[in-house]
Order: sequence, then C-alpha cells, then structure tokens
Amino acid sequence: MALMFFSEYDDPREWKEHLVALMPDLDVRIWPDLGRLEDIDCALVWKHKPGDLKRYPNLKMIVNLGAGVDYILTDPDLPRGVPIVRLVDPYLTKQMSDYIVLTVLAYHRRFPEFARAQRERRWQYIHPVDPARTRVGVMGLGVLGGDAARRLRELDFQVAGWSRTPKAIDGVASFHGADGLMPFLDRTDILVCLLPRTRDTDDLLDARTLRALPQGARVVNAGRGHLIVDGDLIAALDDGQIAHATLDVFRTEPLPADHPYWRHERVTITPHCASVTLPRTAAPQIIDNLRRLRDGRKLLNRVDPAAGY
Amino acid sequence: MALMFFSEYDDPREWKEHLVALMPDLDVRIWPDLGRLEDIDCALVWKHKPGDLKRYPNLKMIVNLGAGVDYILTDPDLPRGVPIVRLVDPYLTKQMSDYIVLTVLAYHRRFPEFARAQRERRWQYIHPVDPARTRVGVMGLGVLGGDAARRLRELDFQVAGWSRTPKAIDGVASFHGADGLMPFLDRTDILVCLLPRTRDTDDLLDARTLRALPQGARVVNAGRGHLIVDGDLIAALDDGQIAHATLDVFRTEPLPADHPYWRHERVTITPHCASVTLPRTAAPQIIDNLRRLRDGRKLLNRVDPAAGY
Repeated sequence: MALMFFSEYDDPREWKEHLVALMPDLDVRIWPDLGRLEDIDCALVWKHKPGDLKRYPNLKMIVNLGAGVDYILTDPDLPRGVPIVRLVDPYLTKQMSDYIVLTVLAYHRRFPEFARAQRERRWQYIHPVDPARTRVGVMGLGVLGGDAARRLRELDFQVAGWSRTPKAIDGVASFHGADGLMPFLDRTDILVCLLPRTRDTDDLLDARTLRALPQGARVVNAGRGHLIVDGDLIAALDDGQIAHATLDVFRTEPLPADHPYWRHERVTITPHCASVTLPRTAAPQIIDNLRRLRDGRKLLNRVDPAAGY
Repeated sequence: MALMFFSEYDDPREWKEHLVALMPDLDVRIWPDLGRLEDIDCALVWKHKPGDLKRYPNLKMIVNLGAGVDYILTDPDLPRGVPIVRLVDPYLTKQMSDYIVLTVLAYHRRFPEFARAQRERRWQYIHPVDPARTRVGVMGLGVLGGDAARRLRELDFQVAGWSRTPKAIDGVASFHGADGLMPFLDRTDILVCLLPRTRDTDDLLDARTLRALPQGARVVNAGRGHLIVDGDLIAALDDGQIAHATLDVFRTEPLPADHPYWRHERVTITPHCASVTLPRTAAPQIIDNLRRLRDGRKLLNRVDPAAGY
C-alpha cells in the first residue's frame, strides 16, 4: 500500500521511520515527491493544500494528523465518500492535559498577578488557597476534555464539565446541552475550552456567555480560535469581568502582528503548541487502520462529517 | 494545657478553631494577649520575634509552623533543652509539589520563551518535546523533594535526585554526597532546589556548581534563598549558562526593591508562596504531639538542631 504524507509542522522522515518500522512493505511518499498519484491509497495530512486531496483517484482513507478535524472538513474539494479518521494518540491526550494542568495551576497559584507585581518591583504576598475551593469548568468532555477533567480532579480542584451530551466522570459534575450552559458557567472560576470547532461551537464564548461567568473568572482556550468572539473577550478583559485569558488557538494563525491580544497585559499567548501528535505513539493506530482498510474491516476513530468531529 | 500562637502570615483564629475542635480543653492564646507567661506549655510559631521564646519559663515544646526550621534555629535566645518539632503537613507537601510541577512544566513547555516572543509580538512556534527527553534534577530528597521527584516521574520526566545520604525512589536516579554532586549537575536540564538551609547547603549554588550544569539549564529554587550566591546566578543568567531562574525564596524577604532580580528578564519571582501550612491538615499532628508531650511519649517530627533540620 502507498501512503502520502503532508504536514508543514511535522518531520516527514520521523513519521516514515515509525510507520515503516511497523509495516515494512508500506510505501511512504512525502509530498511533493509522490510519483504516480494513482498509487496513493491513503493520505496522512495536517493542513493540506486546498484541493490537494482530490488529486488521488484511488484514495481510500484520509488520516487527519491530529485530533481536531475542522480544517479538513472545511475543504470544499474533499473527495466524497472517502472515510476520514482522526488520531486519538495517548501521548497527544497526555500532552494536552499537561498544558491544561500547567495553565490552570498557574492561575490557581496567581502567577499572572506575580508577573504584574514583578514588573512593578512589588513583593505582593498572596496566601495560597486549597484547590478544593477553586471551581474549574471544562468545556468539551471527549477524549481530551475527559482526560483533562480527571487530571484536574486528581489535583483536588472542584471540577465540572459541559458537553453536548451527558457524560459520567468520577468526581466531575456534568452539565450538558443548551440548558446546562448557563448553570455551568455560573459555577466556574477557571474556564477551560477544549471543544472541537463545529457549527454549534463557533462564537460560543461571546459577551453573553462571558458575562455568565463569575466576575474575575479566568479562561484557557486550547480548543479552537473560532470558539471565542475576540472583541467580546477583549471587552470583558478590559472591564474586569474576565481577569486573564491564556490562548493557544486563534481564528487566524499565526496570530497577525497587529492583533490586540499581543499587547494585552491580561492575555498570555502560546503559539498553538498545547499538544502535538508524536510519531512514536501515533504510528501504531495508523498502521492498525491501514490493516483494517486492507482487510475490509471497520476503521477506528472515524470522523462523522455531519457532527463535525 | 496552654499553647501560644505567633505568626504574621497566618490567621490565628483559623488555627485556634481547628486546634480546639480536636482538643476542646486546649487553652490557645494568641500573641500578644498571653496572660500569665508561666502558663504556656507549648509555642506554635512562625518567624517569632527574636528573644520571645525565652520569656516562657515552663515551655515544654516548640512547634515550627512550617517545614523549614532555619529561622528558628538561628535564634541565639532559643531556650536550651526545649524540644522543637516541625510540621510535616501532607497538604504542605502536595502544595509544594504542585508548585514544582507548575514551574517545571512551564520550563518544559517553553513558557518563558513564549512570554518573550509575546512582548515582541512574535509568533515563535516551538515543537513540544517528550518529557522523557527532559532531565530534571531534584536537590533534597526529604519529605518535600521525595514527593516532588515522584510527581515529576509520573509526568514522564527523566528524574534524578541528590541528597546528603542515598535515597531509593522508584524510577528516580539517586546521587548523594559531595562525590555525587558534579555528576548529578552534569545530567540536569532543569534543577529544582528543595534543600533545607544548613551550614552545608549555604552558598551551594555558586559559579562553580552552576557551571557544572549543561549550558542553558533552568533553575527553580523553592528551598531557601541562602542556597544560591545571587551574584553568581546573575552572572550565569547574563552569559547564557543558565537560561532562566524561578525563585520563591531569597536571602532577604521581602526581596528589596533595588535587588537586580526584580528587573532581570530571565528571572521569575514568586513571593515565598510555594507552600504554606493549612490549619485543617496540620492541626491533627500538633494535637498528636501535645498528647505525646502530656503522656511523656516520644514526639514526632522532632528537629535535630545539630543537623539543622
């Protein structure tokens, strides 16, 4: 079988090495050196060039090199009927949860306030509080959000989650659907957004929902930039409704140099690096799906384009 | 029994409430309203006024309201022969480990570099690496350091520890004594200092030991300010030998407004808040020691003034 690889963010040789180690007869071709396009059975892609995927007449599976499939699903030239699978990489999940633990602990331990005090050469002692008194709310309780909620629970935070459908996670209060949104926001001191981008989640955090959080709430967005109405967030930061935002994802990436987030003293920017897929831990499931494809068995982690994830 | 309470950092009423809940006949007196000084059997103190402890003729036990006893042991007017115990509070330990997890993850996930890039409005993508490739070294493997080493190990970091005597912690390489120091530093990308202040640890991190770390190493000090020769650390930060230092403790606290640490762009300052003792979790062991004192049994967590901890 032949697999086509495209990503501007990942090392193609490292991917090839890990894939071939598991399936020695796999023919890995790295874009743009693809030879006969008719040979390609499978595409392993991250942020492919628009229209590229329709060039392969015998394409039988598209593997999204990551968890979020919003980019791939908005390609108007996506070949119809070719199944799309996404990666559910245990390492990607852990890495995202590490990022959430880091950013939530930084809020809980008042690091933004200490950074401000340091700029003013001011020793501002703040007595640390018990995590059991800090209410964290995780939006999205899928593979990533579920794991993050569990990790925060282990740190003794008061954790709740909100998702489209009800979920049961030990020790995590569950809210769901439109009716659950406002009560969920009302009890959330630190809001963690890990929702996928879908029609339903676009612009979900706007003036109205941000106002539903307690005054001085803090926000982490490691889902997708489109979840947040940027102007509304900036207004909420300016009037103190939101005390701080840590943002890893943006509507336009790289974030344009003139975007007001860059210079806002209550915004921490990380360059979409909360989590990445590692060849070592993700290669086995790609190979598994290639074998399933060859044997005509059911593919794992298949994306439902109608649901958007 | 009568207990005298003194701390300028903690809420006396909260401590009284938790102590009396466990021993209703305990007579808790809050400094300076102490009544007859002859009544006082026990002192529960944090950074007491110099000379104060010699005022109580019937003092039978001094409880240090925290883990580090360097302040109390340097009091020349410490009453001779009165046993000193320190608090080994499970919550204090967890809180310290949370701080270490937070600061080590922040280094590993390149937050200082992202903060610098943000100041320059620069999108600087850095591909995250596997924690298994980052070597963390914990100096001090007592109650605090041992727990921190275990927590870092759970996050998949490559962890080693250095201590006065050899320690065995699963998955943590152990170095000890003077002979072990240089090999330990040589393999350490992120150095975590959790040593107590003793004659042996004063000035331990100087030009020579900082130079033994790999170039670009990063440092966290949540032990005591006296472990570090400040001028040597600043020189090492300036010439790039040390990439960043996160400091919670200082030789003089509060850190004087004219100290060069405040304005150093490669230094993160937190105001000695890595860990505090909570009445809720620490009160039971104080009451336990009061009962032991009353019954003539062996006290727990007794300090050895000769060793300094």
